[in-house]
Amino acid sequence: MNETPMNPPTTHWRLRLGALMESTAITRLVTALIILNAAILGIQTYPDLMTEWGELLLTLDQLILAVFILELALRFVARGLGLLRDPWAVFDCLVVGVALVPSSGPFAVLRALRVLRVLRLISINPNMRRVVEALLSSLPGMSSIAMLLGLIFYVAAVMATQLFGAAFPEWFGSLGASLYTLFQVMTLESWSMGIVRPVMEQFPLAWMYFLPFILIATFMMLNLFIAVVVNAMQTTHEQEAKLAPPSPTEQLLLDELRALRTEVAELRQQR
Amino acid sequence: MNETPMNPPTTHWRLRLGALMESTAITRLVTALIILNAAILGIQTYPDLMTEWGELLLTLDQLILAVFILELALRFVARGLGLLRDPWAVFDCLVVGVALVPSSGPFAVLRALRVLRVLRLISINPNMRRVVEALLSSLPGMSSIAMLLGLIFYVAAVMATQLFGAAFPEWFGSLGASLYTLFQVMTLESWSMGIVRPVMEQFPLAWMYFLPFILIATFMMLNLFIAVVVNAMQTTHEQEAKLAPPSPTEQLLLDELRALRTEVAELRQQR
Amino acid sequence: MNETPMNPPTTHWRLRLGALMESTAITRLVTALIILNAAILGIQTYPDLMTEWGELLLTLDQLILAVFILELALRFVARGLGLLRDPWAVFDCLVVGVALVPSSGPFAVLRALRVLRVLRLISINPNMRRVVEALLSSLPGMSSIAMLLGLIFYVAAVMATQLFGAAFPEWFGSLGASLYTLFQVMTLESWSMGIVRPVMEQFPLAWMYFLPFILIATFMMLNLFIAVVVNAMQTTHEQEAKLAPPSPTEQLLLDELRALRTEVAELRQQR
Amino acid sequence: MNETPMNPPTTHWRLRLGALMESTAITRLVTALIILNAAILGIQTYPDLMTEWGELLLTLDQLILAVFILELALRFVARGLGLLRDPWAVFDCLVVGVALVPSSGPFAVLRALRVLRVLRLISINPNMRRVVEALLSSLPGMSSIAMLLGLIFYVAAVMATQLFGAAFPEWFGSLGASLYTLFQVMTLESWSMGIVRPVMEQFPLAWMYFLPFILIATFMMLNLFIAVVVNAMQTTHEQEAKLAPPSPTEQLLLDELRALRTEVAELRQQR
Repeated sequence: MNETPMNPPTTHWRLRLGALMESTAITRLVTALIILNAAILGIQTYPDLMTEWGELLLTLDQLILAVFILELALRFVARGLGLLRDPWAVFDCLVVGVALVPSSGPFAVLRALRVLRVLRLISINPNMRRVVEALLSSLPGMSSIAMLLGLIFYVAAVMATQLFGAAFPEWFGSLGASLYTLFQVMTLESWSMGIVRPVMEQFPLAWMYFLPFILIATFMMLNLFIAVVVNAMQTTHEQEAKLAPPSPTEQLLLDELRALRTEVAELRQQR
Repeated sequence: MNETPMNPPTTHWRLRLGALMESTAITRLVTALIILNAAILGIQTYPDLMTEWGELLLTLDQLILAVFILELALRFVARGLGLLRDPWAVFDCLVVGVALVPSSGPFAVLRALRVLRVLRLISINPNMRRVVEALLSSLPGMSSIAMLLGLIFYVAAVMATQLFGAAFPEWFGSLGASLYTLFQVMTLESWSMGIVRPVMEQFPLAWMYFLPFILIATFMMLNLFIAVVVNAMQTTHEQEAKLAPPSPTEQLLLDELRALRTEVAELRQQR
Repeated sequence: MNETPMNPPTTHWRLRLGALMESTAITRLVTALIILNAAILGIQTYPDLMTEWGELLLTLDQLILAVFILELALRFVARGLGLLRDPWAVFDCLVVGVALVPSSGPFAVLRALRVLRVLRLISINPNMRRVVEALLSSLPGMSSIAMLLGLIFYVAAVMATQLFGAAFPEWFGSLGASLYTLFQVMTLESWSMGIVRPVMEQFPLAWMYFLPFILIATFMMLNLFIAVVVNAMQTTHEQEAKLAPPSPTEQLLLDELRALRTEVAELRQQR
Repeated sequence: MNETPMNPPTTHWRLRLGALMESTAITRLVTALIILNAAILGIQTYPDLMTEWGELLLTLDQLILAVFILELALRFVARGLGLLRDPWAVFDCLVVGVALVPSSGPFAVLRALRVLRVLRLISINPNMRRVVEALLSSLPGMSSIAMLLGLIFYVAAVMATQLFGAAFPEWFGSLGASLYTLFQVMTLESWSMGIVRPVMEQFPLAWMYFLPFILIATFMMLNLFIAVVVNAMQTTHEQEAKLAPPSPTEQLLLDELRALRTEVAELRQQR
């Protein structure tokens, strides 16, 4: 009858703590704090407001950060390191942890990353989490198209660097510069007036390189985007289709079949 | 036998008035007036025509406005304040009511809003109303994606203001300026030649911020647009599918099943 | 027994002429002439080639035009004016007839329209004709969206002319200029750096007008395009679906049902 | 019992060689070499690295090229010239063969084509090969739309050259220049601020030419892209649909039918 040897007292309160941390009250509190923090981080971008309220805002920001760290710590206490198997928990740790990196000196740029903390709204809101998960879950099926696009970009960048690198060092001077310029060309931004027409003044046949690249790259990109969108929508739809009622014709077939069974049953009883 | 106590004489004429206001004749008249009003408001943008015909045009405009107000008033008389439960009636009140706001002094800009009155064509034309309703009805299902996009924009704007605000005050000087610039970058307009290349001259690693933003934002926007379009089309299609005739294979199944029932019926009669 | 009073001798040769004009040989000949004519019209754009071969090319062009007119005349002889009920025949008449309009003086621009003759390739090639017909046949269902888009453009143009016309006459000086500029803004070409940022320097709140316009207009346009494409594809697919073989599950159902009928038939024969 | 007269000894080792060339070990080795070669070709675009390691890199490149030629030669030995019936083998020959063309003098540009060799990754990786094959296999069905688009471009280019060629030689001076400019206009790059507004200063009605062209060309292009993407996805889906389990309603129908068969069978046994 003693069925709880596996749940010693120490684990008991951990289970209860875990339930508490996922309760509606705590979730709402954390959501409210994230939104408050987002507002504070937004206000900090206005120098006028900062000179007047700066100290208060920074203190509040530190306080909220402390609450977040406490919350994460409690979740770790409740679940142990197994919590890290949940990718959203890892996400939470990363976006909160960024604030703990010393951001003085060469890492000053890291201060700007503190606002990533606001992205916790995604991990705490089930609907937004589901959208992101649906999109991410359709990525693996896209790896072939993505690899193909990457390969095309690499080959095109090496070619562009060799062909136009010497004459247009700013755009095609190195592999990195070429990759960036080709990305710009793929988005069609100023591709002709800004890049290809100037290039064609020196290399009149440059269109033989750029036009095929534009057609192939924009097409592959569109293909990739549409495939991901359609896959994500299909995942959602298939779950709905399993609960779909019979179509009118299917209902007609079912009714006919059931009537027939009744008749056959009567036939048997006649004997 | 006295079954009309709930329809006292006073309500009777209100019912009849309501039917009259929705009759084809009145609908056509109002449609004609809206189109005439659209033409007048269009002509008013030509200064030459205004100096010659200005007074006549303004008088006509006032007359049509009076008819619209009378029409709305009669609809309120017929239906009471319950009319406001119809969102299209609220829409009509708003676009007509804009003309009644005094548009002198600081509100001069409101004069330009008078042309919104022409949008009443949507609420009076059943086909256009249906298109707008189909699109609006698929918006709630999109709230998660829209919130996600809004969140990404907010986080990106705070980061951009902190990173590039001091060096490029025109583009990233405040949260509002950053939001506008990021919207421009998302539409891909001059994103590279106009914005990112100048920024990269001071911050060579700025592409690490902008390229992921472009990929994520354009993808989410495309996702949002396609999902709304597909949902609106599906709403229309499902209604059609319910009336769809059986496919050839389903018809074959039905025919087989009916033949079988006839045979079983004959079997019973043989006894 | 005299069954041909309705086909007097004069009609007989007309029927035969009609069949001849639609025969493979004539169709191929006309196709070849169209392609030859396309080449000639293309060569005429090179001044160097024109000075050398100009007279020959113009003569050839006139000859081919004469053949086309003869061909159309023969088709009219064979079918009578009823030919004009076929929209493609009307199309042929228009694109050939353009060449007969005197193109001297103020109508010189009409000479450039002669090349439209090459579009006869569409009406003579069944596959291209089918693509165009599929696209055109899905247009009527789109009239509501197109009207909505037109209405939005008109209202937006009147507003823009009133709001920004005085300050930016080149872009918003008249209704026509505003419509053109708004079309440019809808295609996202230089909308921000070229148009909205300069406007915002004078009217800092102009983004409240342009951003909603961009979102609504690009979305409606995408909606319109996707709906036409999907409709055209569905028309093609439904025709294919009618010939589709049963799915594996449907086949299983059919097999079960047929086995059952055999058994019931045997049951009846047992008596 | 002597069943191998068709496989004389000489063919025996060719079969074994063919199997060896397609074995996992060889495939992995070639894949590794392609990636190594891609890295080398990428490094060669950095002048600093070339001055220091140039000789080594060029030697390695030559070595890998030799291995590729040896590999292709062995595949030809194993399969004979019939190998050329496999389009991917032709592709491999072309991209490797480019390196053998003397690239001195006027053919220096061919050196840049050597990097195409890296595209062999597509032919050796089954997943990427499948993506390319799915896209290519949906091209033939698109020939009508592509021809239509080509025809529209040709007609539009001849017209533009005649109308605007004299006034804007840089953009519309020749058929080729017009085709390029119209392609730019179709991608919407600087179409208005860069091209059409300047043209409209001389020809105020030029919008009557460009706006219809933009609407038709972008629509046809979108149509073409979407049709290819959807076709490629459908090819993949139909293969999946053939393996799809019955829907809940279909399962219900099957169950009913099987129950009925059991009952009829019992009916027969009762006698």
